[in-house]
Amino acid sequence: MENMGSQTNISFQTKQVETFTNITIKGILGLLMDNIDGGEDKREVISLGIGDPTAHSCFHTTDAAKEAVVESLLLDKFNGYSPSSGLPVARKAIANYLSRDLPYDLSPEDVYVTSGCTQAIEIAVSILAKPNSNILLPRPGFPTYLLCAAFRNVEVRYYDLLPQNNWQVDLKAIEDLADQNTIGIVVINPGNPCGNVYSYDHLEKIAETAKKVKTLIIADEVYGHLAFGENPFISMGLFSSITPILTLGSLSKRWLIPGWRLGWFVINDPNCIFKSPKIVERIKKYCDIGGGPATFIQAAVPKIIESTKEDFFRNTLKMLKKNSDICYEKIQEISCINCPYRSQGSMVLMVKLNLTLLKDISDDIDFCFKLAKEESVLLLPGTAVGLKNWLRITFAVEPSFLEEGLSRLKSFCLRHSNTKIIN
Amino acid sequence: MENMGSQTNISFQTKQVETFTNITIKGILGLLMDNIDGGEDKREVISLGIGDPTAHSCFHTTDAAKEAVVESLLLDKFNGYSPSSGLPVARKAIANYLSRDLPYDLSPEDVYVTSGCTQAIEIAVSILAKPNSNILLPRPGFPTYLLCAAFRNVEVRYYDLLPQNNWQVDLKAIEDLADQNTIGIVVINPGNPCGNVYSYDHLEKIAETAKKVKTLIIADEVYGHLAFGENPFISMGLFSSITPILTLGSLSKRWLIPGWRLGWFVINDPNCIFKSPKIVERIKKYCDIGGGPATFIQAAVPKIIESTKEDFFRNTLKMLKKNSDICYEKIQEISCINCPYRSQGSMVLMVKLNLTLLKDISDDIDFCFKLAKEESVLLLPGTAVGLKNWLRITFAVEPSFLEEGLSRLKSFCLRHSNTKIIN
Repeated sequence: MENMGSQTNISFQTKQVETFTNITIKGILGLLMDNIDGGEDKREVISLGIGDPTAHSCFHTTDAAKEAVVESLLLDKFNGYSPSSGLPVARKAIANYLSRDLPYDLSPEDVYVTSGCTQAIEIAVSILAKPNSNILLPRPGFPTYLLCAAFRNVEVRYYDLLPQNNWQVDLKAIEDLADQNTIGIVVINPGNPCGNVYSYDHLEKIAETAKKVKTLIIADEVYGHLAFGENPFISMGLFSSITPILTLGSLSKRWLIPGWRLGWFVINDPNCIFKSPKIVERIKKYCDIGGGPATFIQAAVPKIIESTKEDFFRNTLKMLKKNSDICYEKIQEISCINCPYRSQGSMVLMVKLNLTLLKDISDDIDFCFKLAKEESVLLLPGTAVGLKNWLRITFAVEPSFLEEGLSRLKSFCLRHSNTKIIN
Repeated sequence: MENMGSQTNISFQTKQVETFTNITIKGILGLLMDNIDGGEDKREVISLGIGDPTAHSCFHTTDAAKEAVVESLLLDKFNGYSPSSGLPVARKAIANYLSRDLPYDLSPEDVYVTSGCTQAIEIAVSILAKPNSNILLPRPGFPTYLLCAAFRNVEVRYYDLLPQNNWQVDLKAIEDLADQNTIGIVVINPGNPCGNVYSYDHLEKIAETAKKVKTLIIADEVYGHLAFGENPFISMGLFSSITPILTLGSLSKRWLIPGWRLGWFVINDPNCIFKSPKIVERIKKYCDIGGGPATFIQAAVPKIIESTKEDFFRNTLKMLKKNSDICYEKIQEISCINCPYRSQGSMVLMVKLNLTLLKDISDDIDFCFKLAKEESVLLLPGTAVGLKNWLRITFAVEPSFLEEGLSRLKSFCLRHSNTKIIN
């Protein structure tokens, strides 16, 4: 493709992003990264784009987890295949871990060990997929669901999360969207990209709504326990007697090890409404064709869970709370960006662009490409998570790094402002 | 299901296996395992059923590989996400490793790092799948291909491997079976389940045949370099100028670490017949929804490859050759089992049952269930790999263990023989 000048290039990129709304976050950030100005006086790139905190030493995992893996590897007992559903000790440890949040004990048989939460999403969508089926996804949401649905020919229907209402689920929308071909409702809590943490009452209402429309809930709890605001983390599994819940999660976020690829797909269905020998057979077969996580990492799961100290979790939450506050407060200083909700969980929040206050920015994608080029700061355009003219900010970084990134964001906004009334 | 007596139970199990011909080897061996007699004087279970040698100390991986992974883990630099296509250092190391067998250099961009060869198979079948498409699989073959094809609605057409001809491909069958909807021909070399190692000439003929019928080759080289007979291992990629080759492989077998889940999907297509921006985009997106292998294991790949000594590989080949010979010779002593080909590669071989010499065995599945029950020996019924009344024997075990297993097999055959003319 010939070079058509910088403005045209950006239009080309915008088109690319729009064409590939079923691309993942990593894909879009790759395009943004390519757009960073490689000039002489280039500054350090500040990525507030992806939920991978491991680049920052304040978000390194605990030594206990690494020791457990080294021990397991050196034992020479876990270099072979594991059963496709997962190593029994790992299934049991995950069942016990998740049962702490439930009024009943999960069976290890209900746990399938997956290669990160990504494979758990793939399994959930694929085993539910049927001809002419549809799935209800939150908007804004997590693009991997859209991509999986596209590959499995499942129609996507979006229900809104309501910013004016702490990003709660629009329950009425679910009732309107669901029909007899709806295979499930995806609920992400703690929320990505909104940082919401739902109350017991709201989760119960979601479950009641799912029951009313006769479908199950895919509860994405990859950010489980990463709640640092008013509401504690409550597992959707608590409401599995109302409607079946497929719980997806991983060690990735709470243990700060997304690269270890250790996740789970769990059936919370005490009344066996969904679970049947046929379904279990289908899940097992699906696990047979997936790669699954490394056996020696699976073998380390019991020790990782047991030996991690509360201090480690507390420290992570303290850091996230601090950074969430920095974000919220710094954003208040930027008049063209509005933050309707102070993040209470996960590692992200959503902010809204006021384009009328900017003189030469056409939309969120244009904003992000120009910000990357001019300030070497990466933010995720809201379009990537289904909300045009919003931005997602990931704050699981060193606080000084976050402050620098937000300062550059402020400079950028000032420079592109069409008004003099800023601060 | 009520207990209907042992004979009926076996019929039930036979039915189960036949119903689930799209089950994997692990699934069938699980059923056999459940069938082992739990009586008082039960003997050690001898599994010659699955190609996972790691349970035997003579087939433990090299310390160099483990050290590379520990080092990578403790660096604290590889706990985060890797790009979906794989960590650049791993892609480069794999490209270099595979290029040693080729007349040209593979680009790291042509390598996608997968969660074992299983995920590589899944990616190959899924990205090629189209409405009304078909895929040509070898018979006998590896059941994961069948399962993947079933999940992606790709019709399976079998071409035979010819036992009387060193398990070579029936090239005429390929010409007869292929049509304009054929998306690829799967060729497994070194062979599972036959232990074949194809010559340069035969591989070239396969490539020419694929070209003639206008399709590509999926070259499953998961057992690459595990050749210990007359023919050296030759990579199908050598013939990629004839027709595009998708090479699937992993560290699993040669490094004796199947549980590490480190595989690859590689495009060998120097003429860019198959490879296009659209195809590359589709593969990348498909990698986005797969779990992928752990980042710290990927980061260790360059060192694993560089620091493994030739001695380690030589020793593995020596052990496999010895065990292949033990198998071949011991089988000669059993009149109701015939071995048409002495395994030259991989870790397995196929033997044929002569049911007319057995008094109370109805087929290979019946044979394997009774053998498991009476002798605590697991073999894989040929039906599981597409060849009824054959058996697959995996010989990557301690030689003494193999000899014991084959002695029990002989006793079993003698006991069920309908003739006195044995030995």
